[in-house]
Amino acid sequence: MTYTLVLLRHGESDWNAKNLFTGWVDVDLTEKGRAEAVRGGELMVAEGITPDIVHTSLLRRAITTANLSLDVADRHWIPVKRDWRLNERHYGALQGKNKKEILEKFGEEQFMQWRRSYDVPPPPIDLDDPYAQTGDPRYAGLGDAMPRTECLKDVVTRLVPYWENEIQNDLADGLTVLVAAHGNSLRALVKVLDDVSDADIAGLNIPTGMPLVYELDDSFRPLTRGGRYLDPEAARAAAEAVANQGR
Amino acid sequence: MTYTLVLLRHGESDWNAKNLFTGWVDVDLTEKGRAEAVRGGELMVAEGITPDIVHTSLLRRAITTANLSLDVADRHWIPVKRDWRLNERHYGALQGKNKKEILEKFGEEQFMQWRRSYDVPPPPIDLDDPYAQTGDPRYAGLGDAMPRTECLKDVVTRLVPYWENEIQNDLADGLTVLVAAHGNSLRALVKVLDDVSDADIAGLNIPTGMPLVYELDDSFRPLTRGGRYLDPEAARAAAEAVANQGR
Repeated sequence: MTYTLVLLRHGESDWNAKNLFTGWVDVDLTEKGRAEAVRGGELMVAEGITPDIVHTSLLRRAITTANLSLDVADRHWIPVKRDWRLNERHYGALQGKNKKEILEKFGEEQFMQWRRSYDVPPPPIDLDDPYAQTGDPRYAGLGDAMPRTECLKDVVTRLVPYWENEIQNDLADGLTVLVAAHGNSLRALVKVLDDVSDADIAGLNIPTGMPLVYELDDSFRPLTRGGRYLDPEAARAAAEAVANQGR
Repeated sequence: MTYTLVLLRHGESDWNAKNLFTGWVDVDLTEKGRAEAVRGGELMVAEGITPDIVHTSLLRRAITTANLSLDVADRHWIPVKRDWRLNERHYGALQGKNKKEILEKFGEEQFMQWRRSYDVPPPPIDLDDPYAQTGDPRYAGLGDAMPRTECLKDVVTRLVPYWENEIQNDLADGLTVLVAAHGNSLRALVKVLDDVSDADIAGLNIPTGMPLVYELDDSFRPLTRGGRYLDPEAARAAAEAVANQGR
């Protein structure tokens, strides 16, 4: 038995466009981001990928991405599951802050550590910060488990139970599973799937709006490490852009 | 314990605008229909109605209505359930046909019987009709229960198990339930809720895009027969328009 898992990262959001750290702040997609979602759905259609169930985070930019891509793929009617464990990494006190200003204030080394280290989270958000989301009803059940900041390792820790229970259960039922989520929750999932080292995960980026398909064996291990992007040419260009970022 | 049930009929679809019988054909909302959905969400916000879970049909016009209204109400993240039992009435051989042409061909009496009688369905759709939806994966599990035509009585029959099990279970859990569906599936639900007679249901219409709120007792009976529209002025105007239709 081979299982099919499709990962889809949401496209550009209002705060991507404004160069702000976002994390758990629930911003909307831009028009460009909505077009990326539609394109993701068109790529699934072109490749004959038909999700049977979709899992999303609790954040609007992933939910709308799922809605738009599934609608264009004529799969708007499939069952839906949502969970905070698929949310973007909580960016702590950086949420709502301008990336350029943080870079200037704290310097390149600290900035990159917060962005790319595996186990160093940004400072925790103050509970009276306007972006602390205390009292948000969607997290009421979390209680003390509600994060105030997260590093990627924290995301892996909270994501793994959801992957092993909810997602693997649907895969085991023979369902093609679409996961519509975020840069860092999908990096966390890919780290587990491909057994990427703590060091190497820093260099791994997932392009937006481009379905990434994993065929898995019956132990939920990828048949091909790294999976397969449905738009290989665009994925190659995106990977090159990432590789050139440090130059 | 009082339970809260909110009914929301989708707004204008492409085929409403073109004056075609629609039924189970999966057409999209028009821009006007999308605006109606947004307005429905705004009305919920204005009245402090916060759905905890949404039930939709398997049809795009209801699903998109739910997505748009919940997004504007900041409730896009709530759990979702979808079921064919909430679908619009299957319009049989009339699906895809122009209403004016059917009226001219079959005459007023037959036309109104198909549209408004409780227990006379239109002729069944041919299996080779382009709108028969044989092989549609979303109905694959239905087998022989897949309707080829329905009268309102048939809709009541298939809706009641879903009302008594799925929806009542969520209400009993204390959840405010939003049902985003169609003119006839919601008429069927209102018939059951308010115990409307087979004769009187013909004169009952539900306006589009206007949340209808029922407060229910612990036997799931309405505290106030007919519920309460969140926009009473618009609802009154709509009811007058319906009352004037026969003149």
